[in-house]
Amino acid sequence: MARDLLSTIHDPVDLRRFRESELPKIAQELREFIIDIVATKEGHLGASLGVVELTIALHYVFDTPNDLLVWDVGHQAYGHKILTGRRDVFHTNRELNGISGFPKRSESEYDTFGVGHSSTSISAALGMAMASNLQSNARKHIAVIGDASIASGMAFEALNHAGVSGADLLVILNDNAIGIDPAVGALKDYLTKTKSGKETGRDNIFEALNFDYSGPIDGHDLPLLINELKRQKSSKGPRLLHVRTTKGKGLKQAELDQVRYHAPGKFDKVTGDIPQRDDSELPPKFQDVFGHTLLELAHQNDKIIGITPAMPTGSSMKIMMDTYPDRAFDVGIAEQHAVTLAAGMATQGLIPFCNIYSTFLQRAYDQVIHDVALQKLPVVFCLDRAGLVGQDGATHHGAFDLAYLNCIPDLLIAAPMDAVDLRNLMFTAQKGLELPIAIRYPRGRCHIIEWKQDFKEIEIGSSRQLSNGRNIAVLSIGPLGVMVQKLIKSEDLNVTHIDMRFLKPLDATVLDEVFDKHHHVITMEDGTKAGGLGSAVCDYAFAKAYTGKIHKLGLPDSFIEQGPTSDLHKIAGIDRETLLKLIESL
Amino acid sequence: MARDLLSTIHDPVDLRRFRESELPKIAQELREFIIDIVATKEGHLGASLGVVELTIALHYVFDTPNDLLVWDVGHQAYGHKILTGRRDVFHTNRELNGISGFPKRSESEYDTFGVGHSSTSISAALGMAMASNLQSNARKHIAVIGDASIASGMAFEALNHAGVSGADLLVILNDNAIGIDPAVGALKDYLTKTKSGKETGRDNIFEALNFDYSGPIDGHDLPLLINELKRQKSSKGPRLLHVRTTKGKGLKQAELDQVRYHAPGKFDKVTGDIPQRDDSELPPKFQDVFGHTLLELAHQNDKIIGITPAMPTGSSMKIMMDTYPDRAFDVGIAEQHAVTLAAGMATQGLIPFCNIYSTFLQRAYDQVIHDVALQKLPVVFCLDRAGLVGQDGATHHGAFDLAYLNCIPDLLIAAPMDAVDLRNLMFTAQKGLELPIAIRYPRGRCHIIEWKQDFKEIEIGSSRQLSNGRNIAVLSIGPLGVMVQKLIKSEDLNVTHIDMRFLKPLDATVLDEVFDKHHHVITMEDGTKAGGLGSAVCDYAFAKAYTGKIHKLGLPDSFIEQGPTSDLHKIAGIDRETLLKLIESL
Repeated sequence: MARDLLSTIHDPVDLRRFRESELPKIAQELREFIIDIVATKEGHLGASLGVVELTIALHYVFDTPNDLLVWDVGHQAYGHKILTGRRDVFHTNRELNGISGFPKRSESEYDTFGVGHSSTSISAALGMAMASNLQSNARKHIAVIGDASIASGMAFEALNHAGVSGADLLVILNDNAIGIDPAVGALKDYLTKTKSGKETGRDNIFEALNFDYSGPIDGHDLPLLINELKRQKSSKGPRLLHVRTTKGKGLKQAELDQVRYHAPGKFDKVTGDIPQRDDSELPPKFQDVFGHTLLELAHQNDKIIGITPAMPTGSSMKIMMDTYPDRAFDVGIAEQHAVTLAAGMATQGLIPFCNIYSTFLQRAYDQVIHDVALQKLPVVFCLDRAGLVGQDGATHHGAFDLAYLNCIPDLLIAAPMDAVDLRNLMFTAQKGLELPIAIRYPRGRCHIIEWKQDFKEIEIGSSRQLSNGRNIAVLSIGPLGVMVQKLIKSEDLNVTHIDMRFLKPLDATVLDEVFDKHHHVITMEDGTKAGGLGSAVCDYAFAKAYTGKIHKLGLPDSFIEQGPTSDLHKIAGIDRETLLKLIESL
Repeated sequence: MARDLLSTIHDPVDLRRFRESELPKIAQELREFIIDIVATKEGHLGASLGVVELTIALHYVFDTPNDLLVWDVGHQAYGHKILTGRRDVFHTNRELNGISGFPKRSESEYDTFGVGHSSTSISAALGMAMASNLQSNARKHIAVIGDASIASGMAFEALNHAGVSGADLLVILNDNAIGIDPAVGALKDYLTKTKSGKETGRDNIFEALNFDYSGPIDGHDLPLLINELKRQKSSKGPRLLHVRTTKGKGLKQAELDQVRYHAPGKFDKVTGDIPQRDDSELPPKFQDVFGHTLLELAHQNDKIIGITPAMPTGSSMKIMMDTYPDRAFDVGIAEQHAVTLAAGMATQGLIPFCNIYSTFLQRAYDQVIHDVALQKLPVVFCLDRAGLVGQDGATHHGAFDLAYLNCIPDLLIAAPMDAVDLRNLMFTAQKGLELPIAIRYPRGRCHIIEWKQDFKEIEIGSSRQLSNGRNIAVLSIGPLGVMVQKLIKSEDLNVTHIDMRFLKPLDATVLDEVFDKHHHVITMEDGTKAGGLGSAVCDYAFAKAYTGKIHKLGLPDSFIEQGPTSDLHKIAGIDRETLLKLIESL
């Protein structure tokens, strides 16, 4: 029975009943369990395989949940979930109403902090450690953070504070030289040197910040890990244990192609093979339309620069990086730096295309306002994963961008309905705009196979009318417009449909006409109702004393969890049926 | 003639005509010039006095403006402004239509990057350096950054990237062990050791990030500075020069009390004395109401914690820090860390009051969403300097908070009209709220001398009606309500006035009544019209099919520059006259 040990573990107390010599077998079973389920259910594979031994060792040595364990980012926490009472529901991972793909406080007392975005673990664990200190509670506090995440500024801020706090905080640096893509930056090079023993370990960068540094040690060597963690458990103060692991450990193909096996989709659990899919007949992903179009534009315009904070593969910036390595850059998990770097380049006449997932641009909000918009620097923000992203859930939905960007003066905001418009907006953005622009588009595939059409400049602030009807007008922004268009056609609705295309500037001329001719205006967006297109239209409608009614469809004032995007659209009420019912009711 | 050299310098070309031996005299004159003007016109004194020699040396050695010089934060750039063509207008510093207190691209070609918030200079200068490299331009790129600012995460992100970029970038670390308040954190301790020569300089933290490190050198020794900068000018690649300066250098009292003389207001230019003002008859500053109230609550509730990112004096968090040093903390210029640290503490049942200036909370937007609101952790955000802040100008106005917070689910948002309500909101916030709350209040004094009244709990989401009139209702949020109240009284207007108090949740019951009884609703706020109270009321009005008119008064969709707050309110159209005219016109 391959799983006869694991199946007896319902929580870490069960785990601690085993002898140390039995733990390698549990590690093997845990690894197989993860592979078995992720092979069919999909999810983040490589990161969780890499920390199987570390996960077991941590729960074996420390007294969780009394001792507080924070997993940075959290997509490496599958083993943690399985060992802490969620083995039987692990097959619902990332599904609608299933367990979250990330640690989540409401899910388990072992999930001490909700994570998803990187580099929060040290701050959170330090807060817990300072609280324990005030409450005279002798519990331990452990943050497990990867080398790509510790290079992000927020982690440095936490180290800088922790070093003088005297807090009982153990930071475990899980150094595998990769985030989703390979780690970059000077710190990564430094850690690599440290790893290979070229440095003495004295005067170490963490010691400079007043941490007691140990390591590097082999994070797959269970006896070594357990000994070291026992030693750490009896220590106090801020300390850092440098652990060296291999992402994808135990599945050969995942070790060899770590980027692909970060989240490989379905694969063969024995061979590791990912089935070849012929998707040549499918429309491309928006991210690839971005990537190929950027390269095309970069050929024509040598002022174009590409910048991605740690998402070269996910954003398809890699396409430009491969061809123009001196003009397209991965700056690491450093959204703040990415934006201001782009601003600095723009002062010298370059045209930086700064590609950041919508949810991660939240990390650089001040820089967008203060370093870009205030200075009218024509940076082009391409915001991938806007709207609801599906299985990654609440931490990753790009729900807020329309609202948080719309209040910023001197920033243009666009959301293409389809791939052709994305291309044309990108084309327009590099033709000497005098203001920055944000172009947001969703995760997943677009709707047009013939996306590679000749470029056309789009007038800034111009909408386009897609149907002409009576009484009711639907104003959509972004790809929801495709659904609206199909609905109107299939149901033969006598409804006006405008693809607004720009949130800012709003197409006032067209809005005036719409108000003139329609008693009902429906706004439709995959961003928050508060502060987005619907709010902007209501504002304008009152300014124009519009006497009709406005119905806003958009994301509600609550966080949306994970699930298939189509289901989430229904939950949020931005789906076909909701719109159809609304139209029929009017 | 004390100023016979300085008066001949119209730009750095003039400066470069002098012999090196004459530069100390120019430094003396420049220092006196700054003191003379700031003594009567007010401004940021200490930082600019500290870099007089460095400023002269930089413009003397480097070929500005062809070589690109970026001043971090920029309140140390007075000498730079005076030497680069703005000596004759320097007396208009920070005034309405005068020059900005910070470097500003539209003001001078020598101001290569607009600054104001800290820690942006390395990213911006690196962007410029990478641009020069692509453009085969051999110019030099220099970022001057203080030790408090380099400890902020964003600066670390930039160092981490710059270290592997090969860019021709000189970072000058201006180490004076103080920001506005004394610098904190492990890096500060480390730099202090480095300074005193206790370390060998080998294996230095900056060298670990692949920078060529030099120093520390005395930043007031002009010959030494010039020699070293000449050497740096002929070097390439990422390099860091550690310069040691004294904030306030040259004015004895400013050297001795560096916190007070950061921005001392008016002072005697000879003695340095700051005139004693008897302000016992004046109402207190909002920040002091916060500070004293927090201490009072902390006496009663031992779960209360205070957190400030580098603003203990400016926020008056110092009041609690002095009494409870183990419960109130300055975490340095680290807004991201501050917010997530607070979240970590809140998981353990503590009630952190995290005080951040409105404009600086933009730096921690993701953390507010992802680490606090999404997890429903009851952190209390106290946002000082909300609304228009006056002389600090566009980089420092707290203009966006209402809009960028309103789209976040599970976050309460309040803005007290007066000091008593601020106290009562703080009191309410620590009585077991199950959600986080943001309480925003402005810079400057409140309107009530008898502010220290007994605490009263405020019902979440409740407004208060201050006058009852016909036809017209004014809905205000925050201290603008005081002006509204006075206007209604002094002009004997038959107008309803509601102090909304909460942006979220909106008082729907009262809004329903208001819509019922009034043909005109005027919303009044010192935040952006887009996305704030006005937008929220318009949204609700359409949802309720309100048939009257809504008139929004708030900040326009453009950046507001510096000047007296009263003037800025007029420019923004949120002043008494604008409101009176609007009411009379209805």
